[in-house]
Formats: sequence, C-alpha cells, structure tokens
Amino acid sequence: MTQPRKSRPTPPRAQVRALEGFCHAVLLAAGADEATADAAVSAMMHGSRLGVDSHGVRLLDHYVRALRGGRIAAAPKLRLVSETGATASLDAGHAHGALAAYTAMDHALRLADQFGIGAVAIRNTSHFGPAGAYAIRAAERGCMGLAVCNSDSFVRLHDGAERFHGTNPVAFAVPVAGERPWLLDMATSAITYNRVQLHRSIGADLPTGVASAEDGTETVDPDGAAMLAPLGGLFGFKGAGLAGMVEILSAALAGMRFSAEILPMSGPDFATPREMGAFVLAIRPTAFLAEDTFAQGVHRYLAALRGSAARPGATVMAPGDREWAEEKRRLAGGVPIDPETERAFRRLGREYGVEPPFG
Amino acid sequence: MTQPRKSRPTPPRAQVRALEGFCHAVLLAAGADEATADAAVSAMMHGSRLGVDSHGVRLLDHYVRALRGGRIAAAPKLRLVSETGATASLDAGHAHGALAAYTAMDHALRLADQFGIGAVAIRNTSHFGPAGAYAIRAAERGCMGLAVCNSDSFVRLHDGAERFHGTNPVAFAVPVAGERPWLLDMATSAITYNRVQLHRSIGADLPTGVASAEDGTETVDPDGAAMLAPLGGLFGFKGAGLAGMVEILSAALAGMRFSAEILPMSGPDFATPREMGAFVLAIRPTAFLAEDTFAQGVHRYLAALRGSAARPGATVMAPGDREWAEEKRRLAGGVPIDPETERAFRRLGREYGVEPPFG
Repeated sequence: MTQPRKSRPTPPRAQVRALEGFCHAVLLAAGADEATADAAVSAMMHGSRLGVDSHGVRLLDHYVRALRGGRIAAAPKLRLVSETGATASLDAGHAHGALAAYTAMDHALRLADQFGIGAVAIRNTSHFGPAGAYAIRAAERGCMGLAVCNSDSFVRLHDGAERFHGTNPVAFAVPVAGERPWLLDMATSAITYNRVQLHRSIGADLPTGVASAEDGTETVDPDGAAMLAPLGGLFGFKGAGLAGMVEILSAALAGMRFSAEILPMSGPDFATPREMGAFVLAIRPTAFLAEDTFAQGVHRYLAALRGSAARPGATVMAPGDREWAEEKRRLAGGVPIDPETERAFRRLGREYGVEPPFG
Repeated sequence: MTQPRKSRPTPPRAQVRALEGFCHAVLLAAGADEATADAAVSAMMHGSRLGVDSHGVRLLDHYVRALRGGRIAAAPKLRLVSETGATASLDAGHAHGALAAYTAMDHALRLADQFGIGAVAIRNTSHFGPAGAYAIRAAERGCMGLAVCNSDSFVRLHDGAERFHGTNPVAFAVPVAGERPWLLDMATSAITYNRVQLHRSIGADLPTGVASAEDGTETVDPDGAAMLAPLGGLFGFKGAGLAGMVEILSAALAGMRFSAEILPMSGPDFATPREMGAFVLAIRPTAFLAEDTFAQGVHRYLAALRGSAARPGATVMAPGDREWAEEKRRLAGGVPIDPETERAFRRLGREYGVEPPFG
C-alpha cells in the first residue's frame, strides 16, 4: 500500500555570510585552529555558493567528527619536504584536505611567479572537498590552475566488476579578464554517488550507462547500484583512463594510498589518518605570451562558444557559466539547506552554543 | 538491385622496418629535410605499430601534399621565442606537427631535468598526429608526459548544434619500471570521425550518443551524421569541458587559432600554413619522491588494476595494454595496409622511384 506523499516544506535558506560565520564558529569550537577553519569554510562555501551542494556545508558535520576523532589534525604542521626547481612535495601532516590543498596551490602559485609553472604533490592529506575551489584560487591570481585528487573507491573500471577508482575529480580553471574564471570541475565517473542516493530517495530510475550491479553489469535501478560507471558509457575506458591519471598524480607521485586502499570516508574509524595524496599545478600564461594576447584569445574563444548554435530549446554554456549564475542567485537569496544538514546544524549549534544561520 | 558482395582480398601487410624506410624515402624525395622526415615517420609509425591506424602511415600521402603545397615547411626553422624558468614558447615555423611536438617535448624534458617540470607551448605548427607519441617520449626518459592539441572542428558542444571543437586529444604517459609505459591517448569526443566513415562503409548504425544531425539532435545514421558528440553522452558537458581545456592550452596559450578558425586539414588550400598551437608538459617523478617509491607505487597500482574483477566474459586492462599487445603482433606479423593507402603508396612509389613496402 502506498502512503500518500506528504508535501515537503520549503527548505530553510541561509544567507552566505551567516552560513560562513556558523561553520567557522563550529569548527573552532570543535578544536580546529584558525587556518583549518578558514580553509574548510572557504572550500565548503565554494560548493554552497556555486550550487555544488555535495561539497558544500553539508560536510560540516562530517568534518567535526573527523576533527574530534583525530583523523584530521586540528592544529596540523604542514611542511615542504622536498623542493626542486618549480616543484615541491608538501607533507600536510594529516591536515584538513582544504588547508592542504590551498597551501599547496599557494606554493604552486609562488613557483609559477618565479618559474612560469609550479607543481606541488601533497602527502598525508584528507578529504579533498571541491577540487574547483583550489583551481579557482589560481585563476583569481592570473594563472591557470589544475587540482586533482583520488578518493574512496566507488567506480568500476571499464569492463570491471568491482569498485576500483574514486570519482577522482579533475578541476581546471582559466582566468578570464574582467569576468569570473572559466571553470571545469568534473568527476571522472559518469555521475557521483550522491546522484544515486537522490534517485533512491525519489524512486526514479537512473540514466543508462552510469551504474552497475555487483557483477559489473549495467543497472538503472538505484537500489541495485553497487558501483558507478566511469565517464563515457561504451567508451568508459576514457573515463577510467582519466581516473587513472588522477590516481597516479595524486597517490603515486605522493607515495600515498590508491583509492581502493583508503580508509572509508564514512568510518567507522574516525581516528586513523587516511594518508591521502593530491596534486595541484599552476601555469602562468604571461610566461608564454603577452597578457593581452592571452586575454584576447580567451575572450574570442568564449564569445564564439557562447554565440554558437544550440539544439532546439537548449542553451550553450561555457564551463562555470551555470555555477556563476547560481552563485549570483544564492548571494542574493541565500543557500538552501537540506533537511539532514538542517538537523545536524541544530544539533551542532546546541552542542557548541552557536546560533544556527536560519530562523 | 543489390550487387552480390565481392569477397575482399586480404589486405597486404608491410613489415615495420620496410614501412619506415618507404615513408622516410618518400618524404625526403618530396623535399622534406632529414629532421622532418625522421619526426613524421616516428609519429606515423607510433600509430601504425600500436594499431592507431587513423594516425598511422595512411597520413603519408596527406603529408606529401602538404609539403609540396607549402602548407608544411619542408626545411623549417624552429626557435624558442620565450623562455621563463621551467616554461618556453616554441615557434615551429610551420614545421610538420610531429617535428614541432617532438622538439617541444625534448625541450620540456630538458626543463624537467633542471626544474622537475617543464612546459612548452607550440606556435605555428601543423597537423599533430598521434598525441600519444609525444607523451611516450617523456615516459621513455623517466618522466610523465602530457601532450594536447586542438584540431579541425568536428565536435558539437554539449547542447550545441554546430561543429565547434576538434576531437582535441589528451595523451598522458607514465613510466613503468621494467615495462612499457602506462599510456592514455584519447579523443575528447566520444568517437573519431574515422569511425563514422567506417560505419558508412559497412552500412551499420552508430552507437547512441556519439553523433548528431545538422540541428544537433542525436542520430545513429552514419549518413546523417553531421557532427560528433563530446565524450559523455548525457554528461557531454564533461567531454566538451575537456575539449575546452585542450583548446585553451593549445590555442590561447600559444596565441594561435581555435578549432573553428583552422583551415580544413583536407584542403583545398594546401599552400597556406594552418597556424595551429599545441602544448606539452613533462613531470619528473624523482623531483617529488624517491625513484623506488614511485616505481613501487605504480607497480602496486597496476597489479591491483590488472588483478581486479572483470564483468562476465570481459578483461580489465590498463591504458596502453591493448596497444602494446597489438604492437607485439605487428612487429612480428607486419602492419595491415588498407586499400586506399595501398593505392597511394603505389602511386607515390612510382612518382618518387621508391619500391612500396609490400609485394
């Protein structure tokens, strides 16, 4: 017998400033040092501002658990353990992944100032958060930025029948004179695991080519989805290959764990550091050609792209266009808070004596 | 009335050494200098050895036309026009694309020796050929290599209805101690245009999600395919985003033409240089960590990958495994020559007085 569907109340919305303040206060109260709280809030707010809610403030509760359990160091010592020319290895000392990644990108940018390019491999880091946040850091300082990280294994190989790679994102950002950056931030799987959970909750079939049952065969049933498919469907060897590139840059170049070796993000062990790696790269266009030539080229490309013919009823967008439009809406109208995050915020607010950022 | 299908004769096969010698002699006879002939043969043979026939010796006839027409400089002057730290811009002087790319990668490797990483943007180059050939050059010298290039526009944007990007390949190679390199070499479109032509010739439908009619809507009819789809099907914004990254690194960073601006590879103008850009990057793992740690990590990853569960009846492979196996077969049994290439070789052989590499 089906239950009549209850009408869902409108989710509460939180203003960006209030949300930032709440997350920052909770992290400090949970023991994080200022640098950790700043970085974690900055990364989560990148997700929550741009509409990438899987990597937004819903992660606050998870980060508090990881900080309190000891998995993430609350007051980490980050240090460069090797420096060779335009490259470095950063031992993040089990820092929050955002602090590690911002620190690494800031160093890559210093290297790019000096050498035209800078690359930093990160050791002993934790959950990366939104890769785009660190790529954007480069673009805000006039450089192209690449940020990649491997992660818990959820994704089968092409023709594979077990979880092997993580959703292993690739983020690439390009500065655009007078505009927000060009920003690609993509999982190398077809979809994310959150999308499977969403389809479960609304009882809708998945698209074809995005998930597999335990034996690796295709399924569109979200309840039967045991693993994700690599990007590309029939051509999933491409998505799997890109995931492998991320795996090698993140784990092999840092001497850290491959996706299938990482302790699960969801616990139950929240005490043991996850020993993850990640990789960031900054490229300074002005090392290669005149600033104007580059800026004009990017503008010419984007104008051609945005003016190109679209399918009937559709719109053509550059990577990031959708996100910057969403950011504008959210800066004006606030960030929607899902029910689970609302409950967690009320609990964290009570526990740490911080007022939740909604009524 | 259908004609009875004629049984097709077995295609002739050419031994690798004989094929190399033939291509080299024809290019020299067509006016190419030694460096151009060496590079062009090396790149074409990468394709023909590894089974990537679209970028193999079938290109010889095209390159002869481009050399004789003047589009490609037969005796180019390549020079570094800017050098900043670990980066450089190479003006290839309208050289053959393979000479430009190998020269750029060799310089990137020198930079990586000194700085741990090296990046070279290439200006005034021509048809790139197999991106993997240049990435492999890095891996053969102990570095990771990235090679990208934009190309004639055949691929629509996500939700687009016109040819905008090229098939814009991404090649990434990783050295594997004691083995052939890990090698990803992928178009950022779902399939290549050659694949459409193949389906036309055999009268078979295309897979879904790979091609579009003139208005951008999906088609599986190879005769109705006016453009290719970006990699990813429903998630084609990912393939289009990757193509955009290639476009920016190749064209914007070199001040060169975007895909939609490039003169068509197929002519009719074979006199005007195409003013294309490309980009190569070399990363030296030993700048980041001990050689053994890196080598053991890559081995551990590959062993886990090759030993992981496969779908019923399938095999899991690392990027490049299929190609290295094909290379072994072709080194032993020769390279199959398609009928059109056979005809072109007989014609070129007569014209330049060079014996074709098959009976």
